[in-house]
Amino acid sequence: MNSALATKTSLTRSEFRLHHPLRVRWAEVDAQNIVFNAHYLAYFDLGITEYWRAIGLTYPDQLVYADGDLFVVKSLVNYHASALYDNQLEVCARAARVGNSSITFTLAIFRGEECLVDGEVVYVFANPATKKSVPLPARLRDAITNFELPS
Amino acid sequence: MNSALATKTSLTRSEFRLHHPLRVRWAEVDAQNIVFNAHYLAYFDLGITEYWRAIGLTYPDQLVYADGDLFVVKSLVNYHASALYDNQLEVCARAARVGNSSITFTLAIFRGEECLVDGEVVYVFANPATKKSVPLPARLRDAITNFELPS
Amino acid sequence: MNSALATKTSLTRSEFRLHHPLRVRWAEVDAQNIVFNAHYLAYFDLGITEYWRAIGLTYPDQLVYADGDLFVVKSLVNYHASALYDNQLEVCARAARVGNSSITFTLAIFRGEECLVDGEVVYVFANPATKKSVPLPARLRDAITNFELPS
Amino acid sequence: MNSALATKTSLTRSEFRLHHPLRVRWAEVDAQNIVFNAHYLAYFDLGITEYWRAIGLTYPDQLVYADGDLFVVKSLVNYHASALYDNQLEVCARAARVGNSSITFTLAIFRGEECLVDGEVVYVFANPATKKSVPLPARLRDAITNFELPS
Repeated sequence: MNSALATKTSLTRSEFRLHHPLRVRWAEVDAQNIVFNAHYLAYFDLGITEYWRAIGLTYPDQLVYADGDLFVVKSLVNYHASALYDNQLEVCARAARVGNSSITFTLAIFRGEECLVDGEVVYVFANPATKKSVPLPARLRDAITNFELPS
Repeated sequence: MNSALATKTSLTRSEFRLHHPLRVRWAEVDAQNIVFNAHYLAYFDLGITEYWRAIGLTYPDQLVYADGDLFVVKSLVNYHASALYDNQLEVCARAARVGNSSITFTLAIFRGEECLVDGEVVYVFANPATKKSVPLPARLRDAITNFELPS
Repeated sequence: MNSALATKTSLTRSEFRLHHPLRVRWAEVDAQNIVFNAHYLAYFDLGITEYWRAIGLTYPDQLVYADGDLFVVKSLVNYHASALYDNQLEVCARAARVGNSSITFTLAIFRGEECLVDGEVVYVFANPATKKSVPLPARLRDAITNFELPS
Repeated sequence: MNSALATKTSLTRSEFRLHHPLRVRWAEVDAQNIVFNAHYLAYFDLGITEYWRAIGLTYPDQLVYADGDLFVVKSLVNYHASALYDNQLEVCARAARVGNSSITFTLAIFRGEECLVDGEVVYVFANPATKKSVPLPARLRDAITNFELPS
C-alpha cells in the first residue's frame, strides 16, 4: 500500500545536526512509483547508523558491550508526502531524549526543505542474554550530549 | 540495529479474526540472527493485504477508485521480543477504528501464543490528485463491519 | 529496471520434486507493477531453504560444520516473463549436479505451468576461516541422492 | 545462504569508466554478517541506474518510448569474496556489448582494489505490449558509444 497524504509537520532541517543524503532506489518504490511505507524505517536506520558515526561511536564495534546492546522497542512513522524514484533525500536524526537506559531519536526525511516523513525510534540498552535494561554507558551518554549540545 | 526487548503486551491471538501465516526468510534476519526492525512493517502490510482479501475487496482492483485511494499516514510498531530465522509466525490484523475517511488497523505478530510485535497502521482514503481526504466508500465500510461484527 | 521479455525455456514443473508456493508481495513489485529483477534471486533462496528442509537437513543447524559451510559462488537468472503483484507462484529447486565439494541447483519459478524465470545457483562447501573448499559431508550427499533418486 | 568463496577474477577498477560508491546497510547483511547474495543484483541495478545518468539518458524519462522499454533477460553473478556491514564499496558498470536490440553490461563490485563480485546483466529493448524486441534507439546507442569510446 502506498504512503502519501499531505499533513502538517513542524519539523525543519535546521533542528537537526545530523543530515545524511540518500537517493531513492528503483527497488524501493512500489507499483505507485512511491517509496513503500516500510522502507522509511530502513531510512531511519541509516540515519541512526550515521548518527553513531557522527558522535564517534560506530555500531556495533563501539556500542555493543558484553552485558549491553541497543534494542529497538518502538518505531513511529508519520507520512506527510511521498518520496519518488530517484529523489535526492536527506534523513535527519536527533537524540531527543536520553533516559537512564533509553534513547529516543526524532527522525525526519526531507526533500529539499520539505519534510516528507517524520517519526521516532526508541532504543533501550539491555543485556542481550536476560533482555533486562541496563544503564546507558557513560561514554555513550557523554558522546550524545557533546554532539547535541556542544559547549 | 536489532529489535528485541521483552516488554508487556495485552494482545492475544483470539482478539483477531484475521490470522495470516508467514515464515521468516533468511534475507529478513540481520547480523544478530533476528528480523530487522523495518521488516515488521512489511509483515504488517502482508496482514493488511490479507485483510482486504478476507473482507472480499482485494487491493488495488476493488479498493482504488477514480477519486480515492488508500494512503498510509501513520505506522507504529512496538517490539516485545525478536523473531528468529525460519520461525513460523502469524500476522494478525483488525480494523480497530473506522472514521469518516480513515481506518486504523491494530496489528500483531505472534509466534504461537506469544505476541512478538504489535502496533497500528492508519490509512486515509484520499483523492490521489489533490491528496485531500474523501469519505470511505460505503461498500468498504460495510465489508469491514460485516467482517469484524458478523451478525 | 524491469524484467520481462518472453523467451523460450524447456523447463517444466514435473522435472522438479521440490515445489514451494509463494505469493508476490506488494513490497516486491516495482513501479512497473512487476517483480524487481533481484527479488527472483531471493525467491531462489527460499526454494533452496525448502530444499534443505525436504531432504531432512535444515540450514544452518544441520548443514554448518566446524570446518565447513555452504557458500554461493555463482547465480544465474534467465527472465522469460514477469510475475505480477499478488500472483501465486511456485519456486522449484533441483540439485542438478553434485561434485566433490559443490552443488549446482537448477531453479525455476512457475505461475501455473508457465515458467517465468529459471536459472542456477552454485554452492561450494568450504572452510569458513580459510575459504578453501572441502569435500561435501557424506550425509548431505546421501540426502540429496535419496531425495532426487529415490530407490 | 551466504556468499563468500574466494575465487579468481581478472577485472580491475580501471577497466570501468563508471564507478558508483555505496556503503553496505545493516538491513543488507544476513546472519553471517555478510551481504545476502541477492542484494548484489540490487547493487548492480544501482550501477546501471548511474550508468544511464552518466551517459545523459536517465531512466525511465529518457529511455522509455511508446513502443520500447528496457527489459532484463539475464543476470549472472560470480561471488569471489564477501562484503561486510558498513563496508564502503564501488559498483562499476560497463556496456560490454551492444547488439541490434540488446545491451550486455559487465558489472563488478570493488572494496578498494579487490573485486568482491562480478557478473553481467543483459537488457533487451522491446515493445512493452507485445514483448517483441525492437532496435535500440539511435540516441541510446550513440550515448553508450560516446561514453565508452570518447574520441
